[in-house]
Amino acid sequence: MLFEMLYRRLLILTEGSLGIFESKTGSSVMRYRPQDCVAVLDSVNAGKPLGDFIPGLPDLPIVASVADTLPLQPDALLIGIAPTGGGLPDRMRRHLLDALKAGLSIISGLHVMLRDDPELAELAEANNAKLHDVRDAGQIRHIARGRARYTRAKRVLTIGIDCDVGKMVTALELRKEAVRQGLNAAFVATGQTGIMIEGWGIAIDHVISDFTAGATELLVEHVADKDMCFVEGQGSIEHPGYSAVTLGLLHGSCPDAMVIVCRPDRLLHNDWPDCPVAPIRQQIAINEALLAPLHPGKVVAVAVNTARMTAEDAEAAVRKIAGDAGLPAADPVRHGCKDLIAAIRRQVGI
Amino acid sequence: MLFEMLYRRLLILTEGSLGIFESKTGSSVMRYRPQDCVAVLDSVNAGKPLGDFIPGLPDLPIVASVADTLPLQPDALLIGIAPTGGGLPDRMRRHLLDALKAGLSIISGLHVMLRDDPELAELAEANNAKLHDVRDAGQIRHIARGRARYTRAKRVLTIGIDCDVGKMVTALELRKEAVRQGLNAAFVATGQTGIMIEGWGIAIDHVISDFTAGATELLVEHVADKDMCFVEGQGSIEHPGYSAVTLGLLHGSCPDAMVIVCRPDRLLHNDWPDCPVAPIRQQIAINEALLAPLHPGKVVAVAVNTARMTAEDAEAAVRKIAGDAGLPAADPVRHGCKDLIAAIRRQVGI
Repeated sequence: MLFEMLYRRLLILTEGSLGIFESKTGSSVMRYRPQDCVAVLDSVNAGKPLGDFIPGLPDLPIVASVADTLPLQPDALLIGIAPTGGGLPDRMRRHLLDALKAGLSIISGLHVMLRDDPELAELAEANNAKLHDVRDAGQIRHIARGRARYTRAKRVLTIGIDCDVGKMVTALELRKEAVRQGLNAAFVATGQTGIMIEGWGIAIDHVISDFTAGATELLVEHVADKDMCFVEGQGSIEHPGYSAVTLGLLHGSCPDAMVIVCRPDRLLHNDWPDCPVAPIRQQIAINEALLAPLHPGKVVAVAVNTARMTAEDAEAAVRKIAGDAGLPAADPVRHGCKDLIAAIRRQVGI
Repeated sequence: MLFEMLYRRLLILTEGSLGIFESKTGSSVMRYRPQDCVAVLDSVNAGKPLGDFIPGLPDLPIVASVADTLPLQPDALLIGIAPTGGGLPDRMRRHLLDALKAGLSIISGLHVMLRDDPELAELAEANNAKLHDVRDAGQIRHIARGRARYTRAKRVLTIGIDCDVGKMVTALELRKEAVRQGLNAAFVATGQTGIMIEGWGIAIDHVISDFTAGATELLVEHVADKDMCFVEGQGSIEHPGYSAVTLGLLHGSCPDAMVIVCRPDRLLHNDWPDCPVAPIRQQIAINEALLAPLHPGKVVAVAVNTARMTAEDAEAAVRKIAGDAGLPAADPVRHGCKDLIAAIRRQVGI
C-alpha cells in the first residue's frame, strides 16, 4: 500500500509517446515534482524543446538513450505512460535494460508487474537496482461496509464524465487551495500517477474486484483525523470498461461532497464511436442516487478541463457547463479552486 | 477461465457451517450435481440426517473425518463454503491435510489460493493430488468496450437487492425453463459455485478491478452464438462492499433483459445495521439508468426467494413485491419460471 518515493533524480521514459495525454503519468510527475526530474528519455523526440510537447513544465532536456543521461546522475527511470490494459510497449524495453545495467532503479505504474519478468528481475538483482511496481497493492482482502462515513475528515471525491479528463489534477489543485485556506487537508492517491506524486496510496484499479471499495475505505481511514481529504477518482460511472472501479471508489469513500470533472470536447467514452457520454446532469443524478442509501453526499461543483482551448473559448465553455449542471464551475488549473472550495465548504459545513 | 469439472465422487466439506446459507457453495453443488456427491464432511454434525439442515437434497451421510469416507471412494474434497473475505477457516485445515494424504484432490472457491500454501502444495505433490483454485481467473487483461451488445444470443442478467439472495439459482432455473421451451440457452457462471456446477466460467469478483467488465464481456462472447444466455449476477448495485463487481457485470454483459432477485426479509445489506436496502423500484430504476447510455436493457420480472416461508406467506410476499415493482413476480424454485421466461421473451422478441 505505501510506496515511499525516495528518488530525487528521475529520468522520465516516454519513448515515442510524449504529450500531455499520451504520457499522462510522466507529464504529471514532471508537473507536480519538477524539482525531482532530470531528463526525458525519448529517442523519437530527442533534442527538441519539452515545451513543444507539454507547456508549463521545467525545461528538461529530451535525450535519446540512458547513456546520454548519465552526466545528469539520475537515480531511477520512471515509466511515463500507463496505456489501456497496462502492458510494457516493446519499444521501451531496451531503455529498461540499459537503465538496469547502469544501476538505475525502475518505477512502473503498469498493470504488468516488472518483477515477474525474469530478464528484468535478473538484471536488477545483478546491478543492485530495484523494480518498483507501484500498481501492486499487495494482498488487500478487506470488504467495505460503509465505515468511511465515520471519519472526522470530510471526504471529497472527484468524479468524471469519462476517464482521462483530469480527476487527479482536480483533487491535487483542490487540496492545494484547501491548505492555502488553513485546512489540514490530504490528497488520497488511488492511481499509479497519484501515488508517484504523493508517495503513498493504492492503485484501486489493480485491486481484486471484490475489494475495490474495501481498499478505498482503508485509504480514507488512513487520513481519518484530517479536516478534509480529497480522493482521486477513476473512470466514470457509465464507462463501459471502467465503471466498476468508479463505483467502488464512490461506495468505499462515501463522499460528503463530489466535484465532477468535465472535458467539453469529450462526447464519446474513450472516443469509441458506439459509447456516448451521457449529459452531465444525468451523471450527477446517478452518482448521487447510487450513494444516497448509504450517505447523503452531493455533487457541488464542476471542474472544467479547458487545457486545449483559448482563454475565450474556455470562458464560454465554463459558463455553458455551469448552466447545464446548475452548479458553480471553473477550470482548476486556469482559474484556480477558490469557487470550487467555497462550494465544498458550504456543503460540508467547515 | 475454463475449469473442467472431472470429478464424479465429491466429498463436500462444511465443518461446522452446514446450512443453506452457511455452506452456500456446498449446498448448491449438492442441489445441482446430486449424482456427483458421496458425503458431507462435518465433524460437528456427523451422523445427523442432512435433511435436518438443508431440505430437498439427496440423503447423503454426514461423516466426521476423511478416513470415515474412504469406503465411499471419493475422488475429491470440495470446500463447501465461501466466507466474506475468502480465507480458509482454521477448523477446516486438518481435513484438507487428511484428504491430500489420502490422495484426494481439492476444489476450492476461496479468494486465498491453496496452491500458494507451501504445506498444502507439498502434500499435493507428494500424493499426486491436485489443488484446484476455481476462483483464480488467470491473467485476464481485457478492457470492456460494450462488445457484448453484438452477440447473437439475447443476454439476460440476474441482479439482486442484496448479496446472497439467489441470483445464481434464478439464472440456473431460468436456463432450465428456456431449454424446456426449446431454446438453445446457456448459463454463464460468474462465481465459484456456478463454475463448480457448470464446469466453466470466471469468478468475476476475483478479477483485477480494471478488468471486471472486460472478463464479463469475454464470458458473454464465449456463448455468442446461442439463442439466449443467462448471466449469473453478483452482489447488488448499492451494496457498500460489492457494488463494483455488480456494475462490472452490468456493463460487461449489456443485458437485453434483467430479472431482479428479492428476499422479502432482507432490509439491510448483509444485515449490517447501518446499511439499509433501498426500495425495489429505486433499484430497478438505477440499474436501467446505468445501462441506458450503452444499451436499452430493462428489468422485466422479479424472482422472489421464499425459501424460509410457508406457502401462504410466500404467496402473499410474491403478490406484494409484484405490486411494489410493477412487474411479474414468482419464486423460481417454488413456482417455476414460466411467467419469468414469458416476460423475458416479450422483452427480447424471441
